[in-house]
Amino acid sequence: MVASEIRALFAVASRPEVVSLAGGMPYVSALPLDEFGGMVGELIARNGAEALQYASAQGDPRLREQICDVMALEGVQACADDVVVTVGAQQALDLITRIFVNPGDVVLAEGPSYVGALGTFASYQADVVHVAMDEGGLIPEALEETLVRLRREGRTVKFLYTVPTFQNPAGVTLTAARRTRLLELAAEYDILIIEDNPYGLLGFDDEPMRALRADDSERVIYLGTFSKTIASGLRVGWALAPHAVRAKLVLAAESAVLCHSSFSQLAVREYLSTQPWREQIKEFRLLYRERRDAMLDALDTLMPEGCTWTRPGGGFFVWLTLPEGLDAKAMAPRAIAERVAYVPGTGFYADGNGRRDMRISYCYPEPDRIREGVRRLAGVIENELRTLDTFGGVGHRRSSGVDTPGPEVF
Amino acid sequence: MVASEIRALFAVASRPEVVSLAGGMPYVSALPLDEFGGMVGELIARNGAEALQYASAQGDPRLREQICDVMALEGVQACADDVVVTVGAQQALDLITRIFVNPGDVVLAEGPSYVGALGTFASYQADVVHVAMDEGGLIPEALEETLVRLRREGRTVKFLYTVPTFQNPAGVTLTAARRTRLLELAAEYDILIIEDNPYGLLGFDDEPMRALRADDSERVIYLGTFSKTIASGLRVGWALAPHAVRAKLVLAAESAVLCHSSFSQLAVREYLSTQPWREQIKEFRLLYRERRDAMLDALDTLMPEGCTWTRPGGGFFVWLTLPEGLDAKAMAPRAIAERVAYVPGTGFYADGNGRRDMRISYCYPEPDRIREGVRRLAGVIENELRTLDTFGGVGHRRSSGVDTPGPEVF
Repeated sequence: MVASEIRALFAVASRPEVVSLAGGMPYVSALPLDEFGGMVGELIARNGAEALQYASAQGDPRLREQICDVMALEGVQACADDVVVTVGAQQALDLITRIFVNPGDVVLAEGPSYVGALGTFASYQADVVHVAMDEGGLIPEALEETLVRLRREGRTVKFLYTVPTFQNPAGVTLTAARRTRLLELAAEYDILIIEDNPYGLLGFDDEPMRALRADDSERVIYLGTFSKTIASGLRVGWALAPHAVRAKLVLAAESAVLCHSSFSQLAVREYLSTQPWREQIKEFRLLYRERRDAMLDALDTLMPEGCTWTRPGGGFFVWLTLPEGLDAKAMAPRAIAERVAYVPGTGFYADGNGRRDMRISYCYPEPDRIREGVRRLAGVIENELRTLDTFGGVGHRRSSGVDTPGPEVF
Repeated sequence: MVASEIRALFAVASRPEVVSLAGGMPYVSALPLDEFGGMVGELIARNGAEALQYASAQGDPRLREQICDVMALEGVQACADDVVVTVGAQQALDLITRIFVNPGDVVLAEGPSYVGALGTFASYQADVVHVAMDEGGLIPEALEETLVRLRREGRTVKFLYTVPTFQNPAGVTLTAARRTRLLELAAEYDILIIEDNPYGLLGFDDEPMRALRADDSERVIYLGTFSKTIASGLRVGWALAPHAVRAKLVLAAESAVLCHSSFSQLAVREYLSTQPWREQIKEFRLLYRERRDAMLDALDTLMPEGCTWTRPGGGFFVWLTLPEGLDAKAMAPRAIAERVAYVPGTGFYADGNGRRDMRISYCYPEPDRIREGVRRLAGVIENELRTLDTFGGVGHRRSSGVDTPGPEVF
């Protein structure tokens, strides 16, 4: 499948009769939309001269203070002057890559990793090297082996990109002990860490994990976003960076978009000032936990033997691995025919891995739809297994070419 | 003055006692803010699930149709599928430069040219070559001479960047005859034209000029924005590009920011659907015309002999040239001390030209403040002339180093 075919696939997947476990869209309808609308309307009427005007390239000063309060929930102590507001965390990722990466430089990333990051790294011709992960997140020993090998090969490693908490796409979380070890390795091998943390506050059980940035303010650039805790359509994210990097980020942001939207920034500022945002995040957590439970229950009950999957403690995603001999990408059109959609795993690797894997998300469909989607998916897999059993191989020929998912896959 | 000094200067310039003729901020307070707020509030309450959600990377389909209606006012016939919505026209400029320009490539631009474009070109290490202009805009003969010379030198010209109508910073407009000739030259020398047209609908006298894009859909990429016709804080701009370029733009936009804000896009869509936007533009035109008149009257009455300036037929800016021997950049701190601010001309050139020039804008201050600002500025210039007369030279020593204006200068 080439990119255009994947897009076509998603166009079909968005039909109402298809249960889409493919998208990563937050369930924004859970927000009190009347209140939100009233708040924004009043903001414009009262303060439109500011909310509709150009702003500074670094972002609204008061909002940057509020962002520091949000990060404090994960143990991060930061100063508003080191925060740059960006058009989603994606823009921060783009600007950081623009600043640091020359063509051919190595960027390390978990395998699998966030598709939007891989796309950005590719656009700057970075050479992505994946580091193995398991249920406890990135494996420090694998990281060290990779660093040693790359050093021996004389390669330049610009940074490690990681989503340590409730990872997209794998749904796993880096353990506390591994966080410590990761920071030690970063210091020892003198590498920068880009900590991308969109889901950190969406844990289902415990208090928020301590961010990597909480324990290293010089070697970690932290990326955050309100896309999942407030609303993705506002496109308000941020980077918290060491001072020297921050200055470069502001100049790069200015060159890229002049300044962020005051309209969006002030909506967030107002929301954080006047609305019960902590309680709203709690509601989101309960909502997504119910959906995660629905998905895991259905998987436990329905999936044929040989399938394995992760058990996320927060965030949006489960990573499912098919039995030996099956191919998630080749299977995708047949799943769509059975009215269920997922994202084939190869999109989350820069090196062609992930053929047996898929990302299935529980963030958007309601619990009953999730159960129905898993039921259909289990049927498709069983069918593939029967075909494999009968003919000794299925659909590998249909699975070739480029397969970057489109923008629908966040 | 280095960049940080310019920023410090602008910080002082924003004090209430200073008349700032420096900024390019539209006067958004002229919008009916209560209605705008009510409209947005209702939009969120009714359709928040869309307005607060991720969108496609190309931009909202209905908005792209409306954008075609807006461009039709300038004779442009376009299809919504060839429009990409961007974070202000600045993002379009950034993405286009990213797609086309390799380090060392030549980009042609009027001299003077828009400072935000020069910043973007510099960030991609383009080599900007300025082409002379006069009251009738870019001079075709100068363009042809430049093209011939560059061809002889074996240089690669990637595109001509032009603001043909009510130019920023010079306030001049390319004549109809020169538009025809410009398109002929573009075809003859096989170059692309980036037509940046933020002010096209803000003419004070006649019907809108016919856009370059209206007469060449293959060689012209048109950039537009709602920053001046609705509100800059929404950050909604666009590019209209030939089909092959459009596809690349969408991929680049996706990599840069995933997608534009639905919140902003749907606010614009709703505004264009439900509000009297043509009448509002007419109101903006009357408002800015009154301010342009106030500025030109004051200049005619108060400026000392030897100063010359342009007479804009629309837009936001007058370009003023000081008498021989004066230096606008060196004079800037002394003007601030006299409580008037402008942008020194050197920021609008990539080659160090513009020392005797300045941009003075009439878009934001009210007419009385404009007159007062010009009065103060005339006093400062007279003082400089007296000093020059007495000592034979003023302040040249103070005027060295980098001088890129900050984000305040749109």
